Amino acid sequence: MARYSETIENVMVRLGELPGIGARTAERLTFHLLKASNEEALALAEAIRDLKTKIRPCRECFNPTERDVCVICADERRDHGCICVVEQPKDLLALESTGAFHGVYHVLMGAVDPIHNVEPDDLTIDVLLRRVTGGEVREVILATNPTVIGDSTALLITERLRPTGAKITRLARGLPAGGQIEYANTSILSDALNERRNI
Amino acid sequence: MARYSETIENVMVRLGELPGIGARTAERLTFHLLKASNEEALALAEAIRDLKTKIRPCRECFNPTERDVCVICADERRDHGCICVVEQPKDLLALESTGAFHGVYHVLMGAVDPIHNVEPDDLTIDVLLRRVTGGEVREVILATNPTVIGDSTALLITERLRPTGAKITRLARGLPAGGQIEYANTSILSDALNERRNI
Repeated sequence: MARYSETIENVMVRLGELPGIGARTAERLTFHLLKASNEEALALAEAIRDLKTKIRPCRECFNPTERDVCVICADERRDHGCICVVEQPKDLLALESTGAFHGVYHVLMGAVDPIHNVEPDDLTIDVLLRRVTGGEVREVILATNPTVIGDSTALLITERLRPTGAKITRLARGLPAGGQIEYANTSILSDALNERRNI
Repeated sequence: MARYSETIENVMVRLGELPGIGARTAERLTFHLLKASNEEALALAEAIRDLKTKIRPCRECFNPTERDVCVICADERRDHGCICVVEQPKDLLALESTGAFHGVYHVLMGAVDPIHNVEPDDLTIDVLLRRVTGGEVREVILATNPTVIGDSTALLITERLRPTGAKITRLARGLPAGGQIEYANTSILSDALNERRNI
């Protein structure tokens, strides 16, 4: 059976390996790149190369950065006594975009997930423990996802951090702002009732 | 507002420029590449680079190839007196996979499409005319898509090729094999009636 030439086939196979990109999409993207200007296609190739050669985890918090220490950890004005622990860099960005947090972060690089073979040792928990053990950290905010694996990861970290004496908190649970009670599920409503506040 | 570092942002923007890849998908793919092994991500970058540096249109038929002349045009056993004209390389592959055609091809690189600003001069019609004018071509099979723009492109090519005296044919129209009459639309049924054959 006739196939595309090896070079074309290679791009299709590589693109098809990306999550959510099937064989048909990979073919469509390949032909788009074949038609695209050299400048556009090579810029993509170069951008991907830079991603793997220039970016590394921050030495302190594991947030991906071009430097040794990320801009947040390097910022003297931030409160280094308060660490917000997140599962992944996207979560850090989401929290940072609120402008409501002035401490520093720690990126776990995942959550403990036995089904997908993610063990506690695959995360950056040891480094977090070392950071907190230093003694200058007053509070650790656990901002893992409100899911089974996020919650169990938070529990595990709580146990490990307990001996350090640092205050350990987690994000509030309840009704999502802008949502409607009639569409909230039982877990959300239970949280909202259990964590109700005086007004 | 905090954003990802420039290198990461750059990959997201480049991926987001691809057709059918939105901002969220671009973000997901970027983080996949960030997590992926160096080998995997750099192989993709290299494959895209090769696509733009190694692949060029065949000098004869415009089928993308690593060589000066593609394997089909270079094959002495193929019938160079019969040219099958297709809109794009994918169509060539589809026809070639039947094993039923032993001539050579000509890739137009699109179809005349005024709405998307594709004019006849943007296609490879001039080169086709030159190939056929040589005098060694007996038959030109127009295998453009059975659509408005495919049909009008075929009509235009027919007018240009008429003076060469070569036989001009087009692909048959009718019921798609494996389909059902009750689900065929009126265009398909009209074609099937108009092009009916003696049995």
